[in-house]
Amino acid sequence: MQELMLKPEGPLSGHIDAMIYSLSAGGKQVRPILCMAAAETLGCRMDDMMEVPCALECIHTYSLIHDDLPAMDDDELRRGKPTNHMVYGEAGAILAGDGLLTFAFELLSRPTNNTEISSNDLLRIINVIAVAVGSLGMVGGQALDIDSEEKDIPFETLRTIHACKTGALITASVQSGAILGQADDRQYAALTDYGRNIGLAFQIVDDLLNVEGTAEELGKAVGSDADRNKATYPGFFGVEGTREKAGQAVERAITALASFDQKADPLRDLARYIFERTT
Amino acid sequence: MQELMLKPEGPLSGHIDAMIYSLSAGGKQVRPILCMAAAETLGCRMDDMMEVPCALECIHTYSLIHDDLPAMDDDELRRGKPTNHMVYGEAGAILAGDGLLTFAFELLSRPTNNTEISSNDLLRIINVIAVAVGSLGMVGGQALDIDSEEKDIPFETLRTIHACKTGALITASVQSGAILGQADDRQYAALTDYGRNIGLAFQIVDDLLNVEGTAEELGKAVGSDADRNKATYPGFFGVEGTREKAGQAVERAITALASFDQKADPLRDLARYIFERTT
Repeated sequence: MQELMLKPEGPLSGHIDAMIYSLSAGGKQVRPILCMAAAETLGCRMDDMMEVPCALECIHTYSLIHDDLPAMDDDELRRGKPTNHMVYGEAGAILAGDGLLTFAFELLSRPTNNTEISSNDLLRIINVIAVAVGSLGMVGGQALDIDSEEKDIPFETLRTIHACKTGALITASVQSGAILGQADDRQYAALTDYGRNIGLAFQIVDDLLNVEGTAEELGKAVGSDADRNKATYPGFFGVEGTREKAGQAVERAITALASFDQKADPLRDLARYIFERTT
Repeated sequence: MQELMLKPEGPLSGHIDAMIYSLSAGGKQVRPILCMAAAETLGCRMDDMMEVPCALECIHTYSLIHDDLPAMDDDELRRGKPTNHMVYGEAGAILAGDGLLTFAFELLSRPTNNTEISSNDLLRIINVIAVAVGSLGMVGGQALDIDSEEKDIPFETLRTIHACKTGALITASVQSGAILGQADDRQYAALTDYGRNIGLAFQIVDDLLNVEGTAEELGKAVGSDADRNKATYPGFFGVEGTREKAGQAVERAITALASFDQKADPLRDLARYIFERTT
């Protein structure tokens, strides 16, 4: 991914280091993989289109950097390493996040050598992603999450937080792969359905791991949600009930792929992989 | 501008209020005006293309919100009103900025009814703007500015800070208007030259007003740059020398427009308006 980034010598390079620090901190790259797997489900080879999956990882990384800030979740560890602001200071971390978000849109709008993807489709991908991570998606979900701390929120609100904060970008990752793969309307709807359910499963499992995982597995402090009195799935349904709900979401995700052939197996495997993290 | 924004009822609406608060705080809208004036210089009517100028103002507003944060310039007043974080808290302000930046790219990629502008041109506009406000542009300039506080920096560094932090988005505003107006290469180069010089003049004048303006004119504390030991043009060239440099930049901007007819008069007037702020 770093090959796509300019790494200038000179006065601006310190700032780029902060961006690369978090980009290369060992994320699982779930969003790029989902995008590529969705495109490949439709027979699209991604060789010349790495800008889109890379942009998704940049956006995810920016969101983690900002979420970890002292003014937000105030986390000192992420993926077992000091969070961005612990290394580059608060101003540096805010700007590293801003830089990564902006870089994502630079990547998405870069002139491409790939003649199979039209400018129209690229614009559509940019729009799908921008809507997913904006005020009615990821950013809005994080705002609602922060507002809901220390409050007794109904399950409906927790569902909105999850759908916006985590689900929207995961769904958009699958959708952008679908657009790259020239999905027709029916295929796009099926892959969107898969994306929504996988996004839900992903966040439910994260809630679960936060309650019962080890710090080593999580790379951050266990129980940090409970410490901040955050509402979670286990808080509403208990550990067993939550595991059941994750299983149901994964099941629905796999069912959504029923009309696709074995080229969708990577997407099916990803769904199972998410559930296996809980057991 | 607010008509272009969704204003949902419900759990996400508080966050949108924070975005609208700063968007409607009485900015001079220099960037949207530059974009429209550049397009109109080439005979383009902007009626159906308000997404581009609005996006520019969203990006400018996001940059002000983040620059004002306690971890950055720590300003309590902006345009005579409490800064975003004074009203919505630090987390709220970080997210309002993130939301505005993202919303800009949503606007730029929105399906348009205007058939005169191609998807190719829209992608090019997105790329020009993203490069201008990213790590090698506005965000990088702000990072360098923060790093340079309390340091004895050479003039070369101050010039880089200004060119990146303020100049890049102003230039991109003119360039995106040029693309909307279907500029040929020669026209694009001339308008870019205008944009660079107007951007430089704008920042020099800002430095000057910060030294000698009144708080009422500025809408923020006078002398705040000196308080933070920030390098400024007057620090290098004195007040008179700085005024002269602003005049030269404005002159170069107007010269760059030599090949355009009277449809470029609004751009010429804007250049003069910037200089008049100093006298």
